[in-house]
Parts: sequence; C-alpha cells; structure tokens
Amino acid sequence: MCLLIEEGYFTAVTISFTSLVASLPASMPFVGPETIERQNGATFEARIGANESAFGVSPVAAKVMKIAVDNLAWYNDPANFDLREALAAHHGVSSAEIAIAAGIDDLLGLTVRAFIDRGETAVASLGAYPTFVYHVHGFGCRMLSAPYVDGKNDLGAILDLARSDDVKVIYLSNPDNPTGTWHSAQEIEVLVAQLPEHCILILDEAYAEFMPDDAIPPVCPIHPRVIRMRTFSKAHGMAGARVGYAICSEEVGTGLDKIRLHFGVNRIAQVGAAASLTDQLFVNAVVKKVAEGRDEYVAVGQELDLPTLPSATNFVTFDAGTPKRADRILESLICNRVFVRKPKVAPLDRYFRVTVGHPDERAVFAERLRAIVREV
Amino acid sequence: MCLLIEEGYFTAVTISFTSLVASLPASMPFVGPETIERQNGATFEARIGANESAFGVSPVAAKVMKIAVDNLAWYNDPANFDLREALAAHHGVSSAEIAIAAGIDDLLGLTVRAFIDRGETAVASLGAYPTFVYHVHGFGCRMLSAPYVDGKNDLGAILDLARSDDVKVIYLSNPDNPTGTWHSAQEIEVLVAQLPEHCILILDEAYAEFMPDDAIPPVCPIHPRVIRMRTFSKAHGMAGARVGYAICSEEVGTGLDKIRLHFGVNRIAQVGAAASLTDQLFVNAVVKKVAEGRDEYVAVGQELDLPTLPSATNFVTFDAGTPKRADRILESLICNRVFVRKPKVAPLDRYFRVTVGHPDERAVFAERLRAIVREV
Repeated sequence: MCLLIEEGYFTAVTISFTSLVASLPASMPFVGPETIERQNGATFEARIGANESAFGVSPVAAKVMKIAVDNLAWYNDPANFDLREALAAHHGVSSAEIAIAAGIDDLLGLTVRAFIDRGETAVASLGAYPTFVYHVHGFGCRMLSAPYVDGKNDLGAILDLARSDDVKVIYLSNPDNPTGTWHSAQEIEVLVAQLPEHCILILDEAYAEFMPDDAIPPVCPIHPRVIRMRTFSKAHGMAGARVGYAICSEEVGTGLDKIRLHFGVNRIAQVGAAASLTDQLFVNAVVKKVAEGRDEYVAVGQELDLPTLPSATNFVTFDAGTPKRADRILESLICNRVFVRKPKVAPLDRYFRVTVGHPDERAVFAERLRAIVREV
Repeated sequence: MCLLIEEGYFTAVTISFTSLVASLPASMPFVGPETIERQNGATFEARIGANESAFGVSPVAAKVMKIAVDNLAWYNDPANFDLREALAAHHGVSSAEIAIAAGIDDLLGLTVRAFIDRGETAVASLGAYPTFVYHVHGFGCRMLSAPYVDGKNDLGAILDLARSDDVKVIYLSNPDNPTGTWHSAQEIEVLVAQLPEHCILILDEAYAEFMPDDAIPPVCPIHPRVIRMRTFSKAHGMAGARVGYAICSEEVGTGLDKIRLHFGVNRIAQVGAAASLTDQLFVNAVVKKVAEGRDEYVAVGQELDLPTLPSATNFVTFDAGTPKRADRILESLICNRVFVRKPKVAPLDRYFRVTVGHPDERAVFAERLRAIVREV
C-alpha cells in the first residue's frame, strides 16, 4: 500500500524515531547458536554455550505441557494466579511477593523502567549480564561498572560506585554469570545491610539451585529494596518457555504490575513451570548430574593446564591465560562445531565459558579442546 | 534477609519508583476470565468474552508443538529466523520487513517506545484497544481520542487530531475491536495518503483473516510509516502462545530490534506459528465456521430486538439501546456463567460484545440471553 500515492513517494519518506531510540546502536545482547549455525553452514555437535540444561524438562512438566497445547486457543491468565500461588508456597512468602514475567530478561527491563529515570544510573560489574546493560541503555540510563577481581564481583567497589545519589539500581548475579563464582550468604547480607537508601539491589539468582545450601541467604523476611530474580531456564530445563520470577516486597510487585505486559507469559509455560516446581526429585537429579559434569570439566582443565574458576552454576569458566589465546580457543571450538561463549571485557576476556553438557557433548568438547590446545 | 539488619528497620524503608511509574494508576488492561471465576466461585460455561477462537489449534501446529515440548531446555532463536522467513514468504515481503514479538500487545509497547517521546501524543478512537492506551500512559505519553460515530472509527476526526505536530502515532484497528466494523481498502488508503509527515500509523489487523478479501489493502509496497500488525491469537487459535508480528519497512524493523526483548517469543510458539501458517485449509475452515456463528448471533439479535453491528471479526457487537441496559445484560450474563465483555465509554457503552463460540456455547448464550432480556 498505498495505491493512491504517487510513484517515488516512498523513497522520499522519512520516519522519526524518538531521539533516544535513534541514538541506540543496533545491538543484540546475545547472538543465538542458530544464527552461527546458519552463518557457518553447519550444526553444532555440542550446544554448550548458553547454559541451557543438558538434562531436559521434568517429565511431570512435559506431560502437562503437551496437554496444554490442545487448549492454546485460550489466553494465558494475565494474573499468573496458579503459578504465583505455587511459587509463594514454595518459598514461604505471599503471592503478592511474587512477580512473574517472560524470563529474568523481561524482569530486568521492568525493573530498570520502574526505578531508573532517564539519565540516572545503574551499577554492575564490568562484563555483567549483557541483557541488563541492554535495558539500561535502552531506557536512556547510564551504566557505571566495577571490574571483576580474581574472577569475582568486587562488592566493595560496587558499593562505592553506588553511593552517588543518582545510582538507583545495583545489579549483581549470585552465583555469578559469566564466571560461575559466588559470594556466601553472609557476604550478600553485608552488602544488603550497607545498601544506600536511594538504591534497589537486583540479586539475579538464576543459578540458585546449583548453590551450596548454606550459601543462599534466607528469603524471609523480604527486604523492601532487594529484588531476587529466579528462573525456570536453568535447573528446570525450560529456557525456551520464558518464565522467570522475582521474589520482592509487595510494594515492588505492585509497581512492576503497573508496567508489565500482562499477557506476557505463554500459557503452556505457566502450567509447565507450576508442574516442574512439584518435581523436586527431578531438579535434585539435574543438580547432581551437573556437579558430576563440572568435576569432569575441572579434570580436563587440569590435564590441559587451563585452570578453572570455582563454580556454583551449570557451567565452568576456563582460564586460557591471555585474551588472545581465549579468543583463538573459542574460534577453534566454534569452527569445530562446539558452541561455547566467552566474556569480551578485561579482566574476564582471558576466560571462556562452557556449559555442562550431557556426557556425549562433554566427550566431544574434551576431544576437540585437547586437539585445539596442542595448536594454540 | 537480612539477618544483619536491626528489627524494625524494614517498616521504615522507603523505595523510590521513578516519578512516572509512581504516578501511574494500578491498572490492568483486561481482567482475565479466570479472575472473575475465582471471584464468583464458579467456572464459565461459555467463554465468549475475549475473542478467543472456539475452533482450537491447527492439528498440524499442535503436533509440532507437542514435539517441541521435549526440546524446551533450549532457548528460542532470538532472531525468530524460521518464523520470519515463513511469514515473509506468506506475505510476499522480505524477512527484514517482518518484526515478531510476544503478541500485538508487545508490538504496541515497542512502537510507542520507539516513536513517542515522553509528553508527546498518540491518537486513537475513544474506547480503542485498552492495551495500546496502557502503553501510551505507561511510557509517559498522552492520548487524544476521537469518539466513534455509528459504531465506526471516525477517520476524518482521527486525522484532524493527528495534524498537531506532537502527535507521533495513530492507532487504528481494522477490522475494529470492540465494534467488529471495518473500513474498506480504499478508505484506509485515503487515510494513509493523508497521513501527516510526523505520524506513524499502527494498523492493527488482528482480525484480518475474517475480512472480505477485497477489503484488505494490498501489503506491497510497504509504506514506510505504516506498521501493520497481525496475530496468531485469533483465526490461528493460538492466543495462549503469544505470537504477533508486524509487517513494516526494514527501517522500522531495525528500530524495533534495538529495544525488543530478543528472547521474548516462546520456543513452542515459534514452531507452532510457523506450522499453523502452512495449514491454510484449517484457517479457512475456522473463518467459515465463524461466519456461520456470526449469522446465528445476528438472528438472535433480531429475535430479541437487540440490533447487531456488521462484523468482519470473530465476534458480534449487540446494541442494548442504553448503557444501563447493556451493563445489566452484561452483569446478568456473567452471573449466569457466560463470559462476555463490553466497552465502557460513550457512545460504545450501550453495546456488549460476544465472541463466536462453538455451537454449545452459542446455545448456552442464546438461552441465557433470552431469559435475561425478558427481565431487563
């Protein structure tokens, strides 16, 4: 369209984005493995780059999701009622203290929008989760970053940056992505006790299930300025479903509710997540298998003189010694049909990050890595 | 958490939303039928209030979605590559001219964000799709509205309002929701030809499949300032999946890509939508069954002296004569376990809107409506 318009009109038309959106770079937080496969004309033999679970979906969840397919003509419940009730019972909080969205990615955007005004600031580690940074810039806000030290978030430096009045949100993932390292419950509690009054803390606990039990701070009582984010994408093996949730004060939940996409969570995902939550035996088994896989990776690292960082996640971060060597190993692995990722900024850029795959994928990875390390 | 904090601290904590979010009312564009069922302590016998399809999901799509459940541990392709290719081929455009998101609701939010700066203005009919208005307010923008005339959008009045420089977006649904009426291809083309230079037109064509063939303006060439939105929620029967798309210029697509939630579309929904697109026989059959159901509703309206508006959608809008009578009919239907909705603002508030249900639901509706109309 439009037939009523003269020829040549279309090429002369200009469209005006807001100045903010016009100023943003064309960027994607992550390039998907499918895109790399299309570029390389070859599928990956080991898909161990996005910290997806190699151990699938709970059979209990899979069963109800297949049934839910037949009822997909109905909209999802915009209140996410059943899933919120289930999560509230699971964590011993009220359902008003659970906010559900299409993954932690979605919750991060909502939190930035709710708390950081245009031109105000967020603080995170340099090289922290790119999707958080994407949202901060996308909403016209600024990032301040503290470099990692010895593969860990520098909590003191983060807190120092956050003392400035215009810092509204601190982002911290614990256990950390992309390093896999973690802070103890007590270290997190010290941070929370020192949280400046003008700051919200996003505590991204996507990998919580893989943490040692005593390392996770208790959920109750909920601190009004701490938003803990959890996901069904990792231990529950439902990354493609897009369900994440925040455990937060009722006041925070009410604020997020004013701006969220109310029909944002797929109906199949809603029932699948609630079902998976009942299958803790499955989740425990996944955690155990992941621990075995991590041990295998640590052994491979020792064998090849590539030290590994301690990990409380479903991935292991290898130290290649130099950024150049890490880049070359990454490129070689990808050329050899092993999908892995690596951090891009110093001092993390000498690392590469490998998800615990299923045993076949781990064998492929170890074999290819051995061959590559001989060369580079 | 946090054990290190003194008792009494939590009640003293204040949290600060941005002034915009603090100023927003606690509102939801739509209350789901599940919420009403919980409030009333009874399930609906006829769920014909949200324009969901009564004719389910394509069996071709259901089959691939059930298979996809078993692969849900993998993230969805953030590029939506396969679905974009399929939609591009279907519409005869390039894949760069297709933008995919979690339903038209999601696309509306992205479009507001991309084109209307804080304090700037959008134009729509008074009583137009509430989720558009929700996003306009949610991003700190203003709404100007032109009342419906005789159950139709007043294109001239909309255009008059849009002449002001600070109007950046016009929203128009065609066929219209909540009235079901439509404008011809030529009327839309006249509107597009007169579109002010500072304006984007969102043409929400959620019900496009139900339109008479010659009433839809041709898709090509794509006007740079017209964004046509389509969905799998209606004729395709996949409302719970959350997949919608825009047919738009590559420039618009690139802009939306800078701010969208890249992993926003559920993996099962991605494959299901692509499969459903191949099953045009199914979609055609749905359209035919819906037309039969509409005819039935028109006959019920004639019988009960409740005139119906012409409809090119999967619902029929009944005229109760006065707002008070429409409210009473709506309340009685809901109390009698028939879920329907009605517009709230004049002059639409004397209507109530009924989705074409499956034959059993239509029988329940007709029976209850007959009893109610005798009373009110």
